[in-house]
Amino acid sequence: MDIIDIIEKKKNNFTLNTAEINFVIKEYLEGNIPDYQMSALLMTIWFNGMNYQEINDLTMAMARSGDILDLSSVPGIKVDKHSTGGVGDKTTLALVPMVAAAGVPVPKISGRALGYTGGTIDKLESIKNFQTNLSIEKFIENIKNIKASIISANVNIDPADKKIYALRDVTGTIDSIPLIASSIMSKKIAGGADAFVLNVTVGSGAFMKKINEAISLAKIMVNIGKNNNKKTYVIISSMDQPLGYAVGNSLEIEEAISLLRNQGP
Amino acid sequence: MDIIDIIEKKKNNFTLNTAEINFVIKEYLEGNIPDYQMSALLMTIWFNGMNYQEINDLTMAMARSGDILDLSSVPGIKVDKHSTGGVGDKTTLALVPMVAAAGVPVPKISGRALGYTGGTIDKLESIKNFQTNLSIEKFIENIKNIKASIISANVNIDPADKKIYALRDVTGTIDSIPLIASSIMSKKIAGGADAFVLNVTVGSGAFMKKINEAISLAKIMVNIGKNNNKKTYVIISSMDQPLGYAVGNSLEIEEAISLLRNQGP
Repeated sequence: MDIIDIIEKKKNNFTLNTAEINFVIKEYLEGNIPDYQMSALLMTIWFNGMNYQEINDLTMAMARSGDILDLSSVPGIKVDKHSTGGVGDKTTLALVPMVAAAGVPVPKISGRALGYTGGTIDKLESIKNFQTNLSIEKFIENIKNIKASIISANVNIDPADKKIYALRDVTGTIDSIPLIASSIMSKKIAGGADAFVLNVTVGSGAFMKKINEAISLAKIMVNIGKNNNKKTYVIISSMDQPLGYAVGNSLEIEEAISLLRNQGP
Repeated sequence: MDIIDIIEKKKNNFTLNTAEINFVIKEYLEGNIPDYQMSALLMTIWFNGMNYQEINDLTMAMARSGDILDLSSVPGIKVDKHSTGGVGDKTTLALVPMVAAAGVPVPKISGRALGYTGGTIDKLESIKNFQTNLSIEKFIENIKNIKASIISANVNIDPADKKIYALRDVTGTIDSIPLIASSIMSKKIAGGADAFVLNVTVGSGAFMKKINEAISLAKIMVNIGKNNNKKTYVIISSMDQPLGYAVGNSLEIEEAISLLRNQGP
């Protein structure tokens, strides 16, 4: 199998098969496919898209590139949430404790800031001495004891996504629906939850500017979830203005706490 | 100016201006734009093409990336030829001496094999002790004395093309008409001749498989020549079968000599 043939195939709008997609992810992660070939392939995907089968294959190849968390020791149906992000989005900070308080276990792996979207981990670290860099054992223990835990994504979860995301960021290939869907869903699947609630934001402050793009992304992610026996719900919501009143790490923490005290916006 | 903005602009099918194209070539050659960004940009060009102005700008930015030969000390109208190549193409070997014999000076910078197309330099080196690695001074002296000289392209002619060509070769971006036209014409212009005769080959053994692609490439190259006050003629010819009888470096030299003795095919 040869990466140049795979680039040519996608460039000429043929469908990549499972073996070809697995080859690309494995060899890229091992450094046998250089960045300049991967970026050429990513640009062909930006132009020609991917069908459901290709996106599913890409998602699973990425999910399997690192550890897939085994949360079977935690009783109950574990639920994870994700937002495609926007300005002032503090949903995770308010929602995770609420869901946990209702008795539903929430294992949550969160990231840092991406572009103009703030990162949950950065926000939590504005609380003095707050630890987000937990071991997997401690993460699982927290979920068992207090129903929820939020850790940073620097565990060995989906290293292929980390490497590909960094390349997309500097090659004009961020805004590709197949690449967004596989990036989100591969991390969710590797995170080990049983069900996902995904918030696709749409509008001037979101990655998806148009409602039809948001619907397309939502459908693809639900399909990936279904293919992997993960119940997946998508809420499409507006991101034409910042969420809530506050924008800024510590301010957003304060607003989320106010909300939990029933004093929010 | 930022390469990511330039990639996004071309990706979204806007026209790049002269300053942007000059920036890309200069910064790429200096190593400030990495291969992975250049290959993403090349793939956007593959998909969206370039207009005449963009192709002309790209050609001139590449031509100026190294030395532009000054052949003003050679009397007469200097004529150079180029073929887009194919199997068994020994036109240069026969044509250059014939034109020189007719009294027209032919300064010719030739390359080595590319893909399945043989290189004139490789063919000439099958002659024992034949020197193709001449200095520019010796090259000009030969043209003055015997009307023709063929040297290898390892002088500082169009280094941008060398670097971009090597990247195109491994990223599925060879078969792009704007990139083919700018690659050929930038080298011709840097070579310093006054007029060009270009042979665009078309058919199963050529880079251009279809006649409309060949015509498009021909028109673009004539336009670039016109913009730079270089008389440019294009001959479109069939490459559905090898040219002549022989394929192979020394065999092709023998066939070209036979032809010059009026014993050719």
